Amino acid sequence: MRILLSNDDGYFAPGIAALVKAVSDLATVTVVAPEQDRSGASNSLTLDRPLSLRRAANGFYFVNGTPTDCVHLAVTGMLDERPDMVLSGINLGANMGDDTIYSGTVAAATEGYLLGVPAVAVSLVGKHGEHFETAARVARELVQRFQRQDFGGPVLLNVNVPDVPYEELKGLRVTRLGRRHKAEPVVKQLSPRGETVYWVGPAGEAADAGESTDFHAVAEGYASVTPLQIDLTHTAQIGAAWEWLKA
Amino acid sequence: MRILLSNDDGYFAPGIAALVKAVSDLATVTVVAPEQDRSGASNSLTLDRPLSLRRAANGFYFVNGTPTDCVHLAVTGMLDERPDMVLSGINLGANMGDDTIYSGTVAAATEGYLLGVPAVAVSLVGKHGEHFETAARVARELVQRFQRQDFGGPVLLNVNVPDVPYEELKGLRVTRLGRRHKAEPVVKQLSPRGETVYWVGPAGEAADAGESTDFHAVAEGYASVTPLQIDLTHTAQIGAAWEWLKA
Amino acid sequence: MRILLSNDDGYFAPGIAALVKAVSDLATVTVVAPEQDRSGASNSLTLDRPLSLRRAANGFYFVNGTPTDCVHLAVTGMLDERPDMVLSGINLGANMGDDTIYSGTVAAATEGYLLGVPAVAVSLVGKHGEHFETAARVARELVQRFQRQDFGGPVLLNVNVPDVPYEELKGLRVTRLGRRHKAEPVVKQLSPRGETVYWVGPAGEAADAGESTDFHAVAEGYASVTPLQIDLTHTAQIGAAWEWLKA
Amino acid sequence: MRILLSNDDGYFAPGIAALVKAVSDLATVTVVAPEQDRSGASNSLTLDRPLSLRRAANGFYFVNGTPTDCVHLAVTGMLDERPDMVLSGINLGANMGDDTIYSGTVAAATEGYLLGVPAVAVSLVGKHGEHFETAARVARELVQRFQRQDFGGPVLLNVNVPDVPYEELKGLRVTRLGRRHKAEPVVKQLSPRGETVYWVGPAGEAADAGESTDFHAVAEGYASVTPLQIDLTHTAQIGAAWEWLKA
Repeated sequence: MRILLSNDDGYFAPGIAALVKAVSDLATVTVVAPEQDRSGASNSLTLDRPLSLRRAANGFYFVNGTPTDCVHLAVTGMLDERPDMVLSGINLGANMGDDTIYSGTVAAATEGYLLGVPAVAVSLVGKHGEHFETAARVARELVQRFQRQDFGGPVLLNVNVPDVPYEELKGLRVTRLGRRHKAEPVVKQLSPRGETVYWVGPAGEAADAGESTDFHAVAEGYASVTPLQIDLTHTAQIGAAWEWLKA
Repeated sequence: MRILLSNDDGYFAPGIAALVKAVSDLATVTVVAPEQDRSGASNSLTLDRPLSLRRAANGFYFVNGTPTDCVHLAVTGMLDERPDMVLSGINLGANMGDDTIYSGTVAAATEGYLLGVPAVAVSLVGKHGEHFETAARVARELVQRFQRQDFGGPVLLNVNVPDVPYEELKGLRVTRLGRRHKAEPVVKQLSPRGETVYWVGPAGEAADAGESTDFHAVAEGYASVTPLQIDLTHTAQIGAAWEWLKA
Repeated sequence: MRILLSNDDGYFAPGIAALVKAVSDLATVTVVAPEQDRSGASNSLTLDRPLSLRRAANGFYFVNGTPTDCVHLAVTGMLDERPDMVLSGINLGANMGDDTIYSGTVAAATEGYLLGVPAVAVSLVGKHGEHFETAARVARELVQRFQRQDFGGPVLLNVNVPDVPYEELKGLRVTRLGRRHKAEPVVKQLSPRGETVYWVGPAGEAADAGESTDFHAVAEGYASVTPLQIDLTHTAQIGAAWEWLKA
Repeated sequence: MRILLSNDDGYFAPGIAALVKAVSDLATVTVVAPEQDRSGASNSLTLDRPLSLRRAANGFYFVNGTPTDCVHLAVTGMLDERPDMVLSGINLGANMGDDTIYSGTVAAATEGYLLGVPAVAVSLVGKHGEHFETAARVARELVQRFQRQDFGGPVLLNVNVPDVPYEELKGLRVTRLGRRHKAEPVVKQLSPRGETVYWVGPAGEAADAGESTDFHAVAEGYASVTPLQIDLTHTAQIGAAWEWLKA
């Protein structure tokens, strides 16, 4: 089995090292990750310049681009054989609810899925990253499950794991994405040159954290597994849109 | 009525100038757009540094960030009053099918939608941008329709307009997103310093361009209007995922 | 006569518009300037990716690179004929003393000089840029002087003009670069995500502002004209270095 | 003794690792280097956003900025005590002659010098970096010399070492900077999207490689040591400039 690993925190991040360690005895592992921290990169793709690929002392490859660039370049040009799985992470911080659309971690997995490779994004829900090994072990178990049994079709899983010791993890739950309230306003600061600058503020609080959501599962102490797809069509509004256009 | 305009081609692009011209007599218009061309930016959000906001000679504001940054900053920190609509575009080039997830044009509108503002992304389907005025007129008509009749709820419309004279446009069609085949492989070049560099290749051909899709509508000469949402949950796979996890 | 204009504040900056206006009846003028504000870019040259060249609605060309990139690209690849002069500016803010080595404005002129073209960098000494027309008129006069009489060899002039009405300007003075005291320390701020970030602080106060310096000339109300060269060898230390190495 | 190390190839580059290894038993060593390869950065300083400082697994600090930013931040805000020396490198590739003004390696050392710290920039003259240990040993010997005998004043040394085994090195020579012929033209390529892009071309051949120059010393098999200063005033032209202005 061949696994392609990527992330959005950069190739030097502790999360990806933990992921490599967790799965490297299960498969042939290649790391292709961004040169820099690209958190918040979403599915951003670099079109206005070519990408460079380099190899670090530890054997990891890094690209001067986005998470999506990394997986795209690896699968369509660098690797001799198509990987059997794309693993992205372990992100330091949750990727749940609406935030998923901003996530570079999820985007790296999404690019694998779009290119026909089963893909899993793994995030650790916490600020300080105390238990990467818990998320790493969840990732390992998912890989082993894939090895035992194919999912039976294209699949893109968004996994969020509470930042607790593995023994305290209550199990896995399949969830849907929750919803957040609107983001907090931008935070203004004054630069030393007297110019106002604006920091993007924190995400909003959970607005829909109902029982079947990722927010709820994690709050209850479970690892959340959400199957994703990439069709943004609002099917339920198609009729209303026709009505409105005719109005 | 107050309209916030943005795009991903940069505040200096002809597409946004055409859009401003088309709607400025209908509403109070504020332009907040990226300083640089940020095509392919997706929903990328800048978290590792603050943003600067400047004003160009023509009154347009520009931000050293992504399309999402622009709308986020404008709505949550800069504008005194919440806009009644976010208009994004006119993008030079289609944003249809799977490509929608990479689009900065759609992302700017999506950020408006997430912040509770009705939003429309407008793209001109063509390489050379010969008929921006056609897409501008379609945008104007949609704004007028909003003024006559509220959509009746949150709405995010992805509009793709054929690059033809307005008289040749056959009308509007409400569509779903089509699907593409996998992207073409990366294109390798050699830099003058002897290093291999990799350009992201062209998007794949349409794989699902069935009758109800955006691809089909545009190919037939219609402007395509796709209502979007942002929940990526693959609802149909939730049962299968439970089964698989238990296996 | 053909003049190439560039700057480091970006092609949209008021300073370069003032410069174009001041000299466009004297020569054929081509503007090739950075897409973004690149203040502080020094002689930075982009080696890890290719550059793109675009044309704005007003006819100015812009490049996704540094001031040095702009002049380098224009002279060695874009312009059909070598320009007779490179003009850089008008920078908003002084480029005097030690700061000259950080300046993108001076760097654009330096690149012209290195490529064999007489070059002049023009900066307006002030924070608010109230009298660009004064610096523009000084630039115009220097161009006219070049037209009347060649400098008689390669030349790189660093011009700093007080931000006063032209009538209050006392004249021109040829100067040497002064020296500054050490820069102020970096300024720490806390990001909304709780991370410490560091802004480069203000430049130090003038340490050597003696009579023949640029600092002194400007303080006295004169435009300062400093001829520059680019050989950084500390000739006076060569003997001492030999002694030290033998020690 | 406390040494601050930086470079322009990035904190992960083999050259800086070799340098750390060579001097870490002689002094307390702190590495603060750019997050990314910033070759060609010159004295570029980041003024439009704050900088972030992070620590890698191996204890090296890295900054999302330029070589100059790194030294500036370390000396004026991060280190508790002023370092006794700044060492920059080992650069992969020469920094000789006119190229010195583009060099980020030299710039990191220059920033130390401007802040009052003796500074040495070390470059390995070759394309493939086969003998970093030779340059590392030269750097070590210079540090030991500083420890035995102070230079007796502010000093900024630009050191270029041939890429040969240490036994083949003929010794050290104090030199002046040579001169190059004009750079080669930009190299045009066509992107897969049909746009012309421009790579900065190779540096010109040596034009002045006379006996006392850095070019000559290295060609003869010596390590070149050039004392630098940062006053760009063209003193010899001051009279001519007065004449010309009066003309």
